[in-house]
Amino acid sequence: MTEKTALTPGTHTTPPAKFSHGVKKGNILQVAGQVGFLPAEPGKPPTPAGPGLREQTLQTLANVRSILNEGGAGWDDVMMIRVYLTDTGHFAEFNELYDAYFEEQALTAPPAARTTVYVGLPAGLLVEIDALAVLG
Amino acid sequence: MTEKTALTPGTHTTPPAKFSHGVKKGNILQVAGQVGFLPAEPGKPPTPAGPGLREQTLQTLANVRSILNEGGAGWDDVMMIRVYLTDTGHFAEFNELYDAYFEEQALTAPPAARTTVYVGLPAGLLVEIDALAVLG
Amino acid sequence: MTEKTALTPGTHTTPPAKFSHGVKKGNILQVAGQVGFLPAEPGKPPTPAGPGLREQTLQTLANVRSILNEGGAGWDDVMMIRVYLTDTGHFAEFNELYDAYFEEQALTAPPAARTTVYVGLPAGLLVEIDALAVLG
Repeated sequence: MTEKTALTPGTHTTPPAKFSHGVKKGNILQVAGQVGFLPAEPGKPPTPAGPGLREQTLQTLANVRSILNEGGAGWDDVMMIRVYLTDTGHFAEFNELYDAYFEEQALTAPPAARTTVYVGLPAGLLVEIDALAVLG
Repeated sequence: MTEKTALTPGTHTTPPAKFSHGVKKGNILQVAGQVGFLPAEPGKPPTPAGPGLREQTLQTLANVRSILNEGGAGWDDVMMIRVYLTDTGHFAEFNELYDAYFEEQALTAPPAARTTVYVGLPAGLLVEIDALAVLG
Repeated sequence: MTEKTALTPGTHTTPPAKFSHGVKKGNILQVAGQVGFLPAEPGKPPTPAGPGLREQTLQTLANVRSILNEGGAGWDDVMMIRVYLTDTGHFAEFNELYDAYFEEQALTAPPAARTTVYVGLPAGLLVEIDALAVLG
């Protein structure tokens, strides 16, 4: 029996429903859909980084990474990154931010696969990202 | 060689194309996107529970669970739940239903991670859910 | 330590950002979202097969398969296929194409699970597909 553990960085706001920010079981780690919420502050509602796509994207990637790190993993372990944008017009700028971010991460393994689609998100949110990692 | 098996609960309607409602291989179990179709009745087309989000959501979750159970798994094994809604205005009500449902399931492991996005679905469908489980 | 390797068929156009067309680690293989781009030609921008859903769908499935094959896998190993269409009116035709395609693949294992949702895609693209495989 392999135990399933929740991954809950101290900086994260409480999820809006009964789900975990991340879970790990055996060598599989799944990060829930993250958005660009700034680190939680007691008594304040979740607030996205702003004002634009750049700040939200970088905060979202930082939020995904926190969960990976909480589970003893990092970007090198990530197999799949799912990107949800709200506007096809954001694709080029998002890719520039994405590439620059991962350039800085100094990966030692090939980058993850990725799927990017355009969906609706709650008002004010421009990007959501989740990730699947295989440790080992 | 680990065998891949299809998971096909007797209550389920035939998939509209050549895919399985669920598959299991080794310790990985994947549930296909489920919607709120009522248990299949011979000679009747697939019919969603109704009239609203509440009925469809509960039926959809029941349909996901049937497939998990068919594979010898349960909610405790689920790592990721992907929720597709059609209207951001449904988020609060959906979360209430989701939380109440999982309260009743009496999980003994941390809840799964989750991503929720807003997409188009075939006419009449308000919610679709799929799930990835790692068996213990 | 299990190594993570990138899967890059020679026929594929360069990804538009720092991600891999596919990655494999241990027995898990993840294919990135593929679209209906024709095989890459030096000096030409990525061009989708055309003019319609049929050509794009068949090219997209071929592109997914190239990546599976590059990793020593095939459709029989695929657990989950995620289909992103842009128009609910395409569902019936897409399913006909999907079924005919998999009929020809002569699977020796049950078909993969599948989720199909309707999203926005970059201009000109009608379908995107990704896949998760567990090798035997």
